[in-house]
Amino acid sequence: MVDLVHPLVDAGAFPAKLTVGEPARFEVDAYTAGSDAIGVQIEISFDQQDAIVLPAQRRFDDDRWSATWIPAQVGPAAWRARAWLDPWQTWRNLSSRRRHAGVLDHIDIADGAEICREIRRRVRNGPHASELRAQLSRIHGLLLLGDVDDVLADGQFGEQLSGWFSTIRQASLTTSAPLWIARERAGHSSWYEFFPRSVGPGGSLMDAARELPRIAEMGFDVVYLPPVSPIGFTGRKGANNALTSAPGEPGSPWAIGGDTGGHDAVHPDLGDVHDFVEFVNRAEEAGLEVALDLAFQCSPDHPWIQQHPEWFMARADGSFRTAENPPKIYEDIHPLRFDGPAWQELWRALLDVTLTWVERGVRIFRIDNPHTKPFDFWEWLIAEVRQRHPDVIFLSEAFTRPRVMERLAKVGFDQSYGYFTWRRSANELRAYFTDVRDRTSDFMRVNAWPNTPDILSEQLRHAPRRVFEARAVLAATLSANWGIYGPAFERCDNRPSGSGEEYLDSEKYQARNWGDDVRHDDISELVERLNTIRRDHRALQNDASLIFHHCDDDNILCYSKQSIDGDLVLMVVNAEADQIRWGEIHLDYRALGIRPEADLELYDELSGETFR
Amino acid sequence: MVDLVHPLVDAGAFPAKLTVGEPARFEVDAYTAGSDAIGVQIEISFDQQDAIVLPAQRRFDDDRWSATWIPAQVGPAAWRARAWLDPWQTWRNLSSRRRHAGVLDHIDIADGAEICREIRRRVRNGPHASELRAQLSRIHGLLLLGDVDDVLADGQFGEQLSGWFSTIRQASLTTSAPLWIARERAGHSSWYEFFPRSVGPGGSLMDAARELPRIAEMGFDVVYLPPVSPIGFTGRKGANNALTSAPGEPGSPWAIGGDTGGHDAVHPDLGDVHDFVEFVNRAEEAGLEVALDLAFQCSPDHPWIQQHPEWFMARADGSFRTAENPPKIYEDIHPLRFDGPAWQELWRALLDVTLTWVERGVRIFRIDNPHTKPFDFWEWLIAEVRQRHPDVIFLSEAFTRPRVMERLAKVGFDQSYGYFTWRRSANELRAYFTDVRDRTSDFMRVNAWPNTPDILSEQLRHAPRRVFEARAVLAATLSANWGIYGPAFERCDNRPSGSGEEYLDSEKYQARNWGDDVRHDDISELVERLNTIRRDHRALQNDASLIFHHCDDDNILCYSKQSIDGDLVLMVVNAEADQIRWGEIHLDYRALGIRPEADLELYDELSGETFR
Repeated sequence: MVDLVHPLVDAGAFPAKLTVGEPARFEVDAYTAGSDAIGVQIEISFDQQDAIVLPAQRRFDDDRWSATWIPAQVGPAAWRARAWLDPWQTWRNLSSRRRHAGVLDHIDIADGAEICREIRRRVRNGPHASELRAQLSRIHGLLLLGDVDDVLADGQFGEQLSGWFSTIRQASLTTSAPLWIARERAGHSSWYEFFPRSVGPGGSLMDAARELPRIAEMGFDVVYLPPVSPIGFTGRKGANNALTSAPGEPGSPWAIGGDTGGHDAVHPDLGDVHDFVEFVNRAEEAGLEVALDLAFQCSPDHPWIQQHPEWFMARADGSFRTAENPPKIYEDIHPLRFDGPAWQELWRALLDVTLTWVERGVRIFRIDNPHTKPFDFWEWLIAEVRQRHPDVIFLSEAFTRPRVMERLAKVGFDQSYGYFTWRRSANELRAYFTDVRDRTSDFMRVNAWPNTPDILSEQLRHAPRRVFEARAVLAATLSANWGIYGPAFERCDNRPSGSGEEYLDSEKYQARNWGDDVRHDDISELVERLNTIRRDHRALQNDASLIFHHCDDDNILCYSKQSIDGDLVLMVVNAEADQIRWGEIHLDYRALGIRPEADLELYDELSGETFR
Repeated sequence: MVDLVHPLVDAGAFPAKLTVGEPARFEVDAYTAGSDAIGVQIEISFDQQDAIVLPAQRRFDDDRWSATWIPAQVGPAAWRARAWLDPWQTWRNLSSRRRHAGVLDHIDIADGAEICREIRRRVRNGPHASELRAQLSRIHGLLLLGDVDDVLADGQFGEQLSGWFSTIRQASLTTSAPLWIARERAGHSSWYEFFPRSVGPGGSLMDAARELPRIAEMGFDVVYLPPVSPIGFTGRKGANNALTSAPGEPGSPWAIGGDTGGHDAVHPDLGDVHDFVEFVNRAEEAGLEVALDLAFQCSPDHPWIQQHPEWFMARADGSFRTAENPPKIYEDIHPLRFDGPAWQELWRALLDVTLTWVERGVRIFRIDNPHTKPFDFWEWLIAEVRQRHPDVIFLSEAFTRPRVMERLAKVGFDQSYGYFTWRRSANELRAYFTDVRDRTSDFMRVNAWPNTPDILSEQLRHAPRRVFEARAVLAATLSANWGIYGPAFERCDNRPSGSGEEYLDSEKYQARNWGDDVRHDDISELVERLNTIRRDHRALQNDASLIFHHCDDDNILCYSKQSIDGDLVLMVVNAEADQIRWGEIHLDYRALGIRPEADLELYDELSGETFR
């Protein structure tokens, strides 16, 4: 019996996610009735490439077998497991126990010789057949001479033979389970979101490009832009989400479409398509990838409103429904009708928009509100894009209920905004990231953001610098993928608009001149340090190795991450950050695989001190 | 989207276990992108009977939907879930929120009227079509009059309509997952095992039948007999597992087969087949069911050794392999060869043995060492028996690794001996029974035994009476199924043979005269009290409702069970029982569904006192 255990999503209904360069551990339960020994291997198959076969190892005193593999190439794959009875190992196990009990007799030895003979009879051809036959003859001869001790001690021969049984004996084979292997950036990334139009003097993409060296110096590898397309006039929001805008107010970049074009156009104030491509090139020169926001919704002035009214939802009076989540009403946005009679043309148009931006150099998309569109649409769109460009990465911005977020991850999103933004206390963070590691990691990569243009979280409202520092450390080290909305975050903007989560003078509705703004603190240096540590330590580039350790002050979080090549990073963070706290830490040596009496040398990456 | 959650075994590869009379809770995750309202129902189908349809209810603020059903009939079934978009509820939800936000307008009302009209157009026939059309006309009329408040308040109409959408709209339907519904005794049972040959004066079945009233008075409902077939002479074990037996020693009942017959014969010292049937009848009169041990292995004197040597495993010298688990060697037993060339005849013969005992009135079998035989054999045997006699119950005696025990449960065993016997401390018991409840309860019913003829557990060795009492309370209340091997247990036999788990003067190898034995204590009264409480309290007849509560002394276990009809039992047990302990208990009111400020009246079932 062999059952797939991990990585497995809904019994194979959806692909499990692997990452190039990141060791993947395959686990199966394999067992048989009685005391027969078995052999197990993991087989990974590809479309146009030979399958990879990995011998699996059994965990001590359990039926869990595992093998580790490091993917090297982006694309689809599948894995399955094969298990077979191993009569030689069965004989060897039983005979060893009988010898230990003092009851091994000449019939046991004759049994072993007979098994050798029988195997030798069946090993006729294959790449190493003659070598194996010679070995079998040697073992057979030893047994005929009664030299059982040497035979029982020869584990290497048993391993050689086990591989052979997989080819000559009937084996249990599982059905195969799909995998999707993404490139490294899907597995670990550091995102910086900013509004180009806030960058002086003109707020154009070329002005904004001058920010790229600063962002790269802070150690980020992804620079994420809100939508760069034209913004509608009708229903345009004013500063601080006012229902009407004064002349000259720029409106929300998410109200896409105006007289200069729709989703595939560039806002004239930002420049043109050439400027955008130039921005992407300049980013690349600085070591940054551009992530673009795709918001599939339209302002009342979008060309599609006239060209394709059937793509929108009509109300009883013939007007189009606006986006809303009462009491929030978005008068400047009409949602699209994904399940209308013209759904095929609409879906095709949205794929074309996506491919247009791919052609302009974008390989990462941040998808706005995917949970308000059908799961089937995303499954189709992502598959279509990947068929042409398997290196494209999709981040799901769905702040909603767990099952819906998880389904979006299952249908193909590479990364997902998670709940970090609202997990404040040490206990909340422990529970959340334990759940992420244990329950959803086969299909969901969480990207942790302490803030977004929409969310000045409760903890950051009116908060001092040290709270921003603590949140930066937590996001950057708890999660292999993190991001900040800046300069609001690194400049510690803590001013809310009213009682909700909105920022005062939110950049969603107005440009902000951060350059001249001296009211704010600046934690850029810490952010740079964190990103450097993340880059230097492979341990921080995975989420699977996260272990929480006990601290006798419950508000202090202590956790570690490890890489397969032995890199170990230990984090200690005062989650409340409201006052100085002391606590004794009890490392979980067993989970770390370290002997408790081992002499540990700890290097403090922030202070540069070394402790023993 | 709708996904089955519970009860579900390996994505539907094996049937989930339900019990007649025991409420079964079906759970699914159902959700949709966007804010469309949905309806969900659970459908249970049978072979020759109309399907049962249960409307599912959504858990507050989550996507988990559930419905509860109480099975009434033994046999196979299957369940699936159906989900559909509910445009009426979608309109009602949005309109209620818009009214609350003060933006509900006449177009919203017109939208609602249009939805009514559209539904009415499609409701043409069906059992309640005209009634529903009348309702739709009424609601439509109210909306045309602008009377939206009454319409939004009318939840009952929404529920009626939701049921209709399941029939007129396209719906998501899951694949169906199998169920096996067993009779009540599979779900809760109290077993008493004893050796008939120890009962004076003659050690026959008719002598043993005189014990039945005593066993019934102790409140048990299953009386379990070790094998009653002839015992071999060759290799027969003597007292205390001696390699040779003196003349007159009876041998182990598990060394089946001699010159008077094999698995279908009755040992002449016990009586004949008529005596066995009479024993079954007398048990039934006393309110007891007989469980018989099926041990599929043969003594060297079994008739099959001569008739079917191909059913046994030959060694190199032509002798038959004996059963062994070195250093334990069972010279009096030959295992059967389940995968030999004559496997079909062997399997058939073992089915015939089983059916023969069914014909003699046995409806419960305790299967000896099922883990040393192929899983496929048990899957086949149990299915064959159930096809003819769906009321037969199988208990798996596999004390082995978790995955193997779990597989046996999956292929059909109704009950399984669990690890209770070796879970001693409060922490071990908490961890074990939490795992039983959360991970394996869909397919495995644990039967908890403090002792067996093979196992005088470490905790009971040389233990005082109070340890036996604590173990009885724990087994009888932690698990809906429990059993004891008596009189050894209720007489507190604590004398080991050597350093292992064997009893001194084990009844496996000799008869014991318990009647004259005055060295021992007697906790029969407590056992009787426990079984009475188990019978009176439906709360103790399930394992799903187990909740552990906190006690500040870690050695004190506090836990509760509840029934769906409101019966609640709270247990407090000093798991160590080595000294008197005090501790403050913190009830998990939330898990119990009780308001913390509620005035609780507690009746102590053991002392008869009442506390507030």
